[in-house]
Amino acid sequence: MSRPPTATLLLVGPDRKGLVAGVSGFLFRHHANIVHADQHADHQERVFLQRVEFELAGMDLAPAEIPKAFAPVAEGFGMQWVLRLSSDRRRAAILVSRQAHCLIDLLARWKMGELEMDLALVASNHPDHADAAGYFGVPFHHWPVTPETRAQQERRLRAELAEQDADLVILARYMQVLSPAMVQAYPQQIINIHHSFLPAFAGARPYHQAHERGVKVIGATAHYVTRDLDAGPIIEQGVVRVSHRDTVEDMIRKGRDLEKTILARAVRLHLENRVLVYGNKTVVFD
Amino acid sequence: MSRPPTATLLLVGPDRKGLVAGVSGFLFRHHANIVHADQHADHQERVFLQRVEFELAGMDLAPAEIPKAFAPVAEGFGMQWVLRLSSDRRRAAILVSRQAHCLIDLLARWKMGELEMDLALVASNHPDHADAAGYFGVPFHHWPVTPETRAQQERRLRAELAEQDADLVILARYMQVLSPAMVQAYPQQIINIHHSFLPAFAGARPYHQAHERGVKVIGATAHYVTRDLDAGPIIEQGVVRVSHRDTVEDMIRKGRDLEKTILARAVRLHLENRVLVYGNKTVVFD
Amino acid sequence: MSRPPTATLLLVGPDRKGLVAGVSGFLFRHHANIVHADQHADHQERVFLQRVEFELAGMDLAPAEIPKAFAPVAEGFGMQWVLRLSSDRRRAAILVSRQAHCLIDLLARWKMGELEMDLALVASNHPDHADAAGYFGVPFHHWPVTPETRAQQERRLRAELAEQDADLVILARYMQVLSPAMVQAYPQQIINIHHSFLPAFAGARPYHQAHERGVKVIGATAHYVTRDLDAGPIIEQGVVRVSHRDTVEDMIRKGRDLEKTILARAVRLHLENRVLVYGNKTVVFD
Amino acid sequence: MSRPPTATLLLVGPDRKGLVAGVSGFLFRHHANIVHADQHADHQERVFLQRVEFELAGMDLAPAEIPKAFAPVAEGFGMQWVLRLSSDRRRAAILVSRQAHCLIDLLARWKMGELEMDLALVASNHPDHADAAGYFGVPFHHWPVTPETRAQQERRLRAELAEQDADLVILARYMQVLSPAMVQAYPQQIINIHHSFLPAFAGARPYHQAHERGVKVIGATAHYVTRDLDAGPIIEQGVVRVSHRDTVEDMIRKGRDLEKTILARAVRLHLENRVLVYGNKTVVFD
Repeated sequence: MSRPPTATLLLVGPDRKGLVAGVSGFLFRHHANIVHADQHADHQERVFLQRVEFELAGMDLAPAEIPKAFAPVAEGFGMQWVLRLSSDRRRAAILVSRQAHCLIDLLARWKMGELEMDLALVASNHPDHADAAGYFGVPFHHWPVTPETRAQQERRLRAELAEQDADLVILARYMQVLSPAMVQAYPQQIINIHHSFLPAFAGARPYHQAHERGVKVIGATAHYVTRDLDAGPIIEQGVVRVSHRDTVEDMIRKGRDLEKTILARAVRLHLENRVLVYGNKTVVFD
Repeated sequence: MSRPPTATLLLVGPDRKGLVAGVSGFLFRHHANIVHADQHADHQERVFLQRVEFELAGMDLAPAEIPKAFAPVAEGFGMQWVLRLSSDRRRAAILVSRQAHCLIDLLARWKMGELEMDLALVASNHPDHADAAGYFGVPFHHWPVTPETRAQQERRLRAELAEQDADLVILARYMQVLSPAMVQAYPQQIINIHHSFLPAFAGARPYHQAHERGVKVIGATAHYVTRDLDAGPIIEQGVVRVSHRDTVEDMIRKGRDLEKTILARAVRLHLENRVLVYGNKTVVFD
Repeated sequence: MSRPPTATLLLVGPDRKGLVAGVSGFLFRHHANIVHADQHADHQERVFLQRVEFELAGMDLAPAEIPKAFAPVAEGFGMQWVLRLSSDRRRAAILVSRQAHCLIDLLARWKMGELEMDLALVASNHPDHADAAGYFGVPFHHWPVTPETRAQQERRLRAELAEQDADLVILARYMQVLSPAMVQAYPQQIINIHHSFLPAFAGARPYHQAHERGVKVIGATAHYVTRDLDAGPIIEQGVVRVSHRDTVEDMIRKGRDLEKTILARAVRLHLENRVLVYGNKTVVFD
Repeated sequence: MSRPPTATLLLVGPDRKGLVAGVSGFLFRHHANIVHADQHADHQERVFLQRVEFELAGMDLAPAEIPKAFAPVAEGFGMQWVLRLSSDRRRAAILVSRQAHCLIDLLARWKMGELEMDLALVASNHPDHADAAGYFGVPFHHWPVTPETRAQQERRLRAELAEQDADLVILARYMQVLSPAMVQAYPQQIINIHHSFLPAFAGARPYHQAHERGVKVIGATAHYVTRDLDAGPIIEQGVVRVSHRDTVEDMIRKGRDLEKTILARAVRLHLENRVLVYGNKTVVFD
């Protein structure tokens, strides 16, 4: 199961001839073995996106030397790029409120080795899940939130995230709104999960509305958090069938199953550097 | 494949003790053999719904005598009810505009014996599909619609529906709005299909909006037409996955596949008397 | 969330006229309020199956008196039947080997109140999951199995199940074969989960075979254990799409997600007395 | 909707460093604009597969000159390759027996412009569908098959395929077995559709067997025909849920819906040169 160390290049830029040749030529010249490569051209917006994963062994560059060597190539094509090493594990924080299903599912997958990340902390505005975090060996913070303490608690959260070098925040059914400043400080690093319906139901108690309207399908959407609340770039979505036999409670339960699965998939796609964002949408190289 | 003749009772009313016993006792006293029975209690709205299908052979009542004999039973429980005989085939009209996918699919299923209905007519505001109707042996009417002729053409349509004793109108991607009067004249007898998304996109060119937002799932909803346009009781819904690899054209094509399948399922559920409506929602006894 | 106490009658027998009237008449005479009722007639095998759930409050019979009062009704129709009270919680044991995904998922759902059962014990042929059981407060037994100790360990297991009054055994990826005697002692009380494919792959390392063949869909099946190993009556099945982009490891991971979801659904259907077995198949009144 | 002319290169060969750079460098040197590119490395079998689609406009090579210019590049890497021009439409033949659902669906999609191919002929061992072919303007051949005439009729079929320059044979529920010689003459050019189950049921009347066993999911598989009957490389698979409420007839009907959708998808993937075969499996670049 221990795979050889790799690096992953993520590139976004204007769609130009020679781009693939330029990037693959660079890697070839430095004796890199390409493990996966995927690209996508959005012809309407004239944007080109690429993800290339390559083995480090055998290269004539040390990992630390790659950025400097690659920069001129990217520059020549006007590309924005990121290089990520498989040895640099993300450090994640999970925020949770009362509902535990997404938290427990993430903890169990993490313990099982499914999610390659360090888990720096679990924080909650309720004390309920201290034990769960403890069982899985993750530090737990109880930071209750009231209208008066909201700003102060977010400062504590951000201080702890900084202290812990966390670079991923997972909202595992965290029912508190983050400030615009916090959202901007972690661009494409905060992942949220919420229910979705065909057609959509805005406002309070959406499952009750969906039940009222007799929908036959319910869904869940995992997305990066932007200032537009639930309208950030979509990472993953899923659905499950329901019928009149399902009470509102049944629908909520089926929704929970979906939410935890979709959130875990989104986190995994993020950890594997498979999600590229441009405009307000994603390209997911799964 | 020729099944013995049956009758189907559909009942909706207040949830009261003894209801199931009352209905099944009636059928037993008249020597009816119950083939299928399904019921549902909406405890929140205190509504009880039942569908019972039974064989006519062996009963001590002729089909025409059943309504009079059953009326007192239903009355005692304050139930609304309908009796439908399998020998009474529905007579359907299909309305279509330019896009043929739902029309051709319905015609082919009908010819194959999948949809037990008579097909009285196909009508369109475009001449394009006269040949298709002709090939399947169904009368075709071309009634072009302009703002000036809309009211008059709907009168022609309604006259022809009346002339043909049509009791089901299928909107197979018919892009014209029906008048409130027409909608009221055919309660729960007009079935429409439209695209749906997680989350929903209102307004024009929804597939373009969905593509813009990078959705991962698209859907379709079949429903009875009410005065609230696309908000009538939902009969059936379905979804299909999409990705960044799908162009808008691909999404439209996948949407077409879904629309035709979901519409055909909804029509079939209707023909088999499996859909009960109360409030603005359905119970589908599939 | 605390619902009023109910009883559930499960009936299987020959398909005869008057059956529904007989059962519902009995309940009506004793002032029972039917909450859910579902029935199914298998016309080919001439079998009739019914599930009726009714509230105990308001009846003129104490719960303990119902069986004696109902027996003659069932006898008259030649029906086999079971009466289950919502107050009689099932007592479950979970058996597990190395893979923890189904175990953790069941424990978390149970703690969250999703599975209405007592959890008497977790037993395993490996010591790995003692902590997980401990965290959730469930007694854990480590009974290693070798060819020599197999029979003896099964005796210990059966003694503990008897001691604990367990009436449900969940094989949560338990990789040991149970003896025919054990299987017979717990008819329709042992639930297993296994992977399934389109088409099926027999023999060792099925995921590797499926990957080799390039399948596009993998599945999982939850079923009651019979002497025919993986061929017992099916309770629930599910599928997930895969592609050439999925390595064998990815397929195994997706399979795990599916297995835990499908097993949990099957356990829930069982606990709610929604599964009736006849011949080698089930009717699931969901 | 008329897209600019493109060419598509399909490559299969040993996994070697520099491959992507080699191919993309060639295209760049000749001023080709890459529209889509997808690649896959099977690390276990050390095979590399690539699909590159590029625009012809602006290149310094005429389409007819590309093969000669590219040959040395492919040779250098030991790759097998095919070049297909979007202007070279495939010429297809549809073979069908009694069941019309796949045939009608293919014809309707073709007429609607969904399948970019010429339709050279429809042939059947039954006369039933002459009218359908006629309506859609496709030549129809009725070649009845008996054990005595089988070989002779296949000769007529092959003569007509040759005469018509057909390079794709779609078995749209064609219930006759093709000879090994015929199968070998059209490698990866014959597409078949068949039902599939979890777990699989071999032998006659599989839907009856699946119903008997109480399966909850049925499937369909589209694949290239090889000498191993239904075991050729899988192009596409799909599933649909069933329950005890579905009679065998319902299951067959749901199976038909699935078969026609999956077959159409497989044909489309083939026409767009998205399917690469190696060993007995496919890589589908969708």
